[in-house]
Amino acid sequence: MSENKFFTLAVVPGDGIGPEVTTEALKVLDAVAAQHGVTFERTEYDLGAKRWHATGETLPDAELEEIRKHDAILLGAVGDPSVPSGVLERGLLLKLRFTLDHYVNLRPSKIYPSVGSPLANPGDVDFVVVREGTEGPYVGNGGALRVGTPAEIATEVSVNTAYGVERVVRDAFARAQARPRKKLTLVHKNNVLVYAGHLWKRTVDAVASEFPDVAVDYLHVDAATIFLVTDPARFDVIVTDNLFGDILTDLAAAISGGIGLAASGNINPDRTAPSMFEPVHGSAPDIAGQQKADPTAAILSAALLLEHLGLPAAARAIEAAVEADIEERTGAARSTAEIGDAIAKRAAG
Amino acid sequence: MSENKFFTLAVVPGDGIGPEVTTEALKVLDAVAAQHGVTFERTEYDLGAKRWHATGETLPDAELEEIRKHDAILLGAVGDPSVPSGVLERGLLLKLRFTLDHYVNLRPSKIYPSVGSPLANPGDVDFVVVREGTEGPYVGNGGALRVGTPAEIATEVSVNTAYGVERVVRDAFARAQARPRKKLTLVHKNNVLVYAGHLWKRTVDAVASEFPDVAVDYLHVDAATIFLVTDPARFDVIVTDNLFGDILTDLAAAISGGIGLAASGNINPDRTAPSMFEPVHGSAPDIAGQQKADPTAAILSAALLLEHLGLPAAARAIEAAVEADIEERTGAARSTAEIGDAIAKRAAG
Ligand SMILES: CC(C)[C@H](C(=O)O)[C@@H](O)C(=O)O
Ligand SMILES: CC(C)[C@H](C(=O)O)[C@@H](O)C(=O)O
Repeated sequence: MSENKFFTLAVVPGDGIGPEVTTEALKVLDAVAAQHGVTFERTEYDLGAKRWHATGETLPDAELEEIRKHDAILLGAVGDPSVPSGVLERGLLLKLRFTLDHYVNLRPSKIYPSVGSPLANPGDVDFVVVREGTEGPYVGNGGALRVGTPAEIATEVSVNTAYGVERVVRDAFARAQARPRKKLTLVHKNNVLVYAGHLWKRTVDAVASEFPDVAVDYLHVDAATIFLVTDPARFDVIVTDNLFGDILTDLAAAISGGIGLAASGNINPDRTAPSMFEPVHGSAPDIAGQQKADPTAAILSAALLLEHLGLPAAARAIEAAVEADIEERTGAARSTAEIGDAIAKRAAG
Repeated sequence: MSENKFFTLAVVPGDGIGPEVTTEALKVLDAVAAQHGVTFERTEYDLGAKRWHATGETLPDAELEEIRKHDAILLGAVGDPSVPSGVLERGLLLKLRFTLDHYVNLRPSKIYPSVGSPLANPGDVDFVVVREGTEGPYVGNGGALRVGTPAEIATEVSVNTAYGVERVVRDAFARAQARPRKKLTLVHKNNVLVYAGHLWKRTVDAVASEFPDVAVDYLHVDAATIFLVTDPARFDVIVTDNLFGDILTDLAAAISGGIGLAASGNINPDRTAPSMFEPVHGSAPDIAGQQKADPTAAILSAALLLEHLGLPAAARAIEAAVEADIEERTGAARSTAEIGDAIAKRAAG
């Protein structure tokens, strides 16, 4: 076994269904790792609602620095109704994304023929959203005055920089160029958010000259939601800001097999820090601990992790196993572990 | 004819398909007006792309003050690719909404049985979005530094006040209370936009005590888009901020018969200035002037106008005419004027 086949993995199971789906993702990862001569050394981090209740901590800096030393991060889900909204999201999940400079939040959408879509005629859906991950309205740059009084004012500031927009736009162009259709759609709202929107538009127009074979399109975010339900097959690569990307990728998941299948990678393309892989779905506290969650999104996120670590064959093995599993789904209920077992067995085989 | 049956109407046909659909809306308005003993005195305002190209003006203050003197405003569509994105939207459409304090942007969604939905099983869709119209990320409170350089930074500030949130939330509760299902769903993103999101959430919780018979629900905006395609029938009244409302209402239109049917009212509930009625769709410059646009959304917006002016019988007459027309649609192409003629004839009959 050559040295570069040993990887360290920070695992953050998190809240709700996070631990259950993470267990299955790791199971599948182990199954393919053995086949592809890879070893993962895993360290689990106890972060999330329980930890916060016990200690008041979300993600201490020292722990973040430990996590940073790993080759990649696998995350389950973050958020619990027992914790004030925003505390864990901002203090844990977004702290990881921002500090580790995950500027490419990669979210592929694909319709598997055998999986039902709520759309009557979805067509051949296969696109990827490149969501900016370190700027926009997610920066936490807001505030409130006179809270709780009739004179309260609350602001949220969307921060957008040429530095931040250009790097994610260039990444999206490169991804579009590597795909058969070579099409990039910028989604923003530049007829209203003129300062940020024009920065995005100008940047896409400028970077486009470096990728003359990529066709470029622009849609307002409201129009983009229309096309996602009337003609989702038109999309190839979408590049968009942090908040619009959040909204569009949940909608994209819904039209293409549901949130149970949607994987994501929070990628640091410059590899100055580990990238983080997580299902798009949330912690779903209502079904947590009941083996009802579909671990497929977490398992597909593990495939994105392998891809990022330069193990495309192992990634393909997981994807093929998932695809085969999906094709044979009968609608009969299986437990989270049963789905994980079935996919692990196929992936190892 | 009693004095209160005479109304003044400011008409802003605007750009693209705006003039065509406005012509049909006025045709239908005239048809029912005659039947219901109402007279409209109309003044047309030449605003939009042509005017801007000719004079550089979007909406001069003096003209805005003239418009303000009317009982209501009917608007077609605003925006043209020959004008830099944002100039007409901010300088004309949003200037009207903000200056005339249209804080309730009312957008009903209904599936007519005979109209196709892109959803396989939409169910019984009948909800209304109360979109805040005078705050949020639409305030134009942003800026940019070092534009066009690699050090550019662009910000957009979402401004939210207790004053602004409470009045629209109270309006939404009252609407929910008046509907059979009495259900209100707040849509925001309070796990990330914690300052604005918590103001909205606290306000809904507080106002809820005045409406004990209204059931209250909260959804993050990303989750709301999922439900809009998997279970839109769950919604009754949605209250949300300006930007989320923009996005959700285009999606809502798409799932329920398309943007050709979606009407809206920009309402000033305190009647300190005239309210404004317009289709949700844009100016669609690609089909402008070709009699290809469906005027139904503009016509249904005229019905909302009648409702607002205290003429519910006339409003119902238009809605019934539209419903009957929709039920008999065969898919054969009709011109904009043919659709308007057919609906006007029914509405008058
Ligand atoms: C949990 C939440 C903070 C997060 C986000 O808004 O980014 C989630 O919705 C997602 O899409 O990963
Ligand atoms: C044209 C544009 C400024 C407008 C908006 O964003 O409000 C439109 O999309 C709408 O929904 O009425």
